[in-house]
Amino acid sequence: MFDAEGRRYLDAYNNVPVVGHGHPRVIEAIAEQARLLNSNTRYLHEAPVELAERLLASMPSEAGFDRALFVNSGSEANDVAWRIARSVTGRSGAIVSEFAYHGVTEATADLSPEEWPRGYAPAHVALVPGPDGYRGRYGRDEPGWATRYGAEVGTAVAAMEGRGTPLAAMFVDPAFTSDGILCPPAEYALEALRAVRAAGGLLVADEVQAGHGRFGDVMWSFQASGITPDVVTMGKPMGNGYPVAAILTRSELVDGFADRTGFFSTFGGNPVACAAALAVLDVLEDEGLLANAATVGARLLQGVEDLGGDHPSVGDVRGKGLLVGVELVKDRSTREPATELAVEVLNELRDRGFLIGVTGRAENVLKIRPPLVFGEAEADLLLGALDEALSSIHR
Amino acid sequence: MFDAEGRRYLDAYNNVPVVGHGHPRVIEAIAEQARLLNSNTRYLHEAPVELAERLLASMPSEAGFDRALFVNSGSEANDVAWRIARSVTGRSGAIVSEFAYHGVTEATADLSPEEWPRGYAPAHVALVPGPDGYRGRYGRDEPGWATRYGAEVGTAVAAMEGRGTPLAAMFVDPAFTSDGILCPPAEYALEALRAVRAAGGLLVADEVQAGHGRFGDVMWSFQASGITPDVVTMGKPMGNGYPVAAILTRSELVDGFADRTGFFSTFGGNPVACAAALAVLDVLEDEGLLANAATVGARLLQGVEDLGGDHPSVGDVRGKGLLVGVELVKDRSTREPATELAVEVLNELRDRGFLIGVTGRAENVLKIRPPLVFGEAEADLLLGALDEALSSIHR
Repeated sequence: MFDAEGRRYLDAYNNVPVVGHGHPRVIEAIAEQARLLNSNTRYLHEAPVELAERLLASMPSEAGFDRALFVNSGSEANDVAWRIARSVTGRSGAIVSEFAYHGVTEATADLSPEEWPRGYAPAHVALVPGPDGYRGRYGRDEPGWATRYGAEVGTAVAAMEGRGTPLAAMFVDPAFTSDGILCPPAEYALEALRAVRAAGGLLVADEVQAGHGRFGDVMWSFQASGITPDVVTMGKPMGNGYPVAAILTRSELVDGFADRTGFFSTFGGNPVACAAALAVLDVLEDEGLLANAATVGARLLQGVEDLGGDHPSVGDVRGKGLLVGVELVKDRSTREPATELAVEVLNELRDRGFLIGVTGRAENVLKIRPPLVFGEAEADLLLGALDEALSSIHR
Repeated sequence: MFDAEGRRYLDAYNNVPVVGHGHPRVIEAIAEQARLLNSNTRYLHEAPVELAERLLASMPSEAGFDRALFVNSGSEANDVAWRIARSVTGRSGAIVSEFAYHGVTEATADLSPEEWPRGYAPAHVALVPGPDGYRGRYGRDEPGWATRYGAEVGTAVAAMEGRGTPLAAMFVDPAFTSDGILCPPAEYALEALRAVRAAGGLLVADEVQAGHGRFGDVMWSFQASGITPDVVTMGKPMGNGYPVAAILTRSELVDGFADRTGFFSTFGGNPVACAAALAVLDVLEDEGLLANAATVGARLLQGVEDLGGDHPSVGDVRGKGLLVGVELVKDRSTREPATELAVEVLNELRDRGFLIGVTGRAENVLKIRPPLVFGEAEADLLLGALDEALSSIHR
């Protein structure tokens, strides 16, 4: 990326341009289809059919998914998933993690405690702790720690039922990006799903953050846990910047909802949006970007861990594929979050021409989440710059 | 438009391609900016600033608008407008017309009785009759009929307050498109706004349907009534098919909301979306499309009225600019809606290569809403085809 003065930046932050900024195949697909026709799905067109078939085929067959609905943003996708869950269960209870983010509409803002105004707490939403093995209530050294976090879902369900609000759905970003990039082991999702199913609720996997191959060895981040959610939502990376999002699920969950509400989105699934989304799927495959995310991600993760040897402020390193969280602390024994340091590192890196973000409740976790075309050379450049940034700030 | 077999159609239905299908200036703007950069508004960029300034300048100065928020669809725009209204008033009551449509998210679906499942009626939403002077409770021949419809808003407010649900906002499409294209005289909006203000609520003008110059003599349909709403939302035509939408309002209504909730939309206001929206504004101006909508719309309206002389099924003709509603009836004296006939006419026209829609509670109102490049030649072609279609179906 280049700024207005022509300074160049290496983008290690944005998951929207998943196949790289300005990828010519995606732009060509958008321009070509826009020249030809951009209509809505009240008219039959092959593009949404092809996209639905491709996306459904990318899901594990045991999920039994056979329906795709197209909308324009992750917010809309999660909002519609929530409407489906309420409609099919006849219930109004939701579970999300303590610092989750699922969208900007009224319904999804209620599912996003990260953005709740002080003192705001909608009665129908129960919070469960993010499965944090570093500083949470169960430590990574305790046997079964991830399962114990998963069991918190069952506890939350019981409390909600006690208040007369049975569970409609749990929404989960399998990478817990806004909770600080936690990427828990499979036991967490397995136990959480068991609790959700036992309560008669739905599990919605929100792949807006970590989907489209970011984890490297799987297309969808929930697959890393081997679970099969009831609904999958996707957005940000789907059109490499073109606004497009989707809800995938099973016909028995959605057909009644669609019939009763006459569900329709004007822009959702328009031929240009579908062309962009199809081009992204093509590029991911043709350029081997999942394999690249796995290889480069491993190198990056190892490199950041190695940096910990020289920089005591590196308290914990977590991640999978090209999603890496670096938790900064003031002191490794107290693990006190180094919030200011995280912002200083982010700004120092920006001044050196590297873009990253921060995340987590204390905003002390460096968020490294580059486009999946990020190569080994770029990883090494970033690691070098991070080393220099941490060194320059040590006081 | 051409279908898969190469058959051509004249589109007299879609308001999304407001400057015409595949307009080269819009596509060029999209392609050029997509090649350069497509990021989000966490990075400063001139395009959203320019677009905000252009849109704000298009609003009447007495509205005092100084803020624009960008999102991806009319649904998101109305959802965020609703969140703003709730936040600033601290109230939860809404008023919409009896067959309104304002969106597909959970919050806006509640504001969309057109799509409510049978028996569904959210407690916080009060309905007021669409100002129908043809078949409603106040006839167009009664003096002050439009004001009396407007006064229904005051009645609804009082009833809501009696139930302990004071008014946050009234949402209104000034053309009442889904209520059957009613386009009431200014007295309606003036009285409705008076009642809303007296109750301490906000008036949200939903310009998703009739905005961007469709009325011909004004850019925004609320301007035809001379009122100044508190919030204006826009979507469908804004990017000529590129998903982009906006909320315009005053800083004192939105700044607190934005601060408390950390409002942000990933795709909303991205440089490509803004480039598309700016190109649409340019084309509307450079091609004189508002004047065209006024001239051609008047010719179309007169032409349809003239058809009524030969076709007794034409019960009423309403509209403004290039939004024309043709209400079909089985009998002019009973005014019984001719729902089946409307679908037959629509299909007959489609078979003859002309696309229109139907609307209204009884789905007996032909909806003629072409792109604003629709010329006099196209209007005459459509009128001829409509004449033939009505003749061919007479039994």
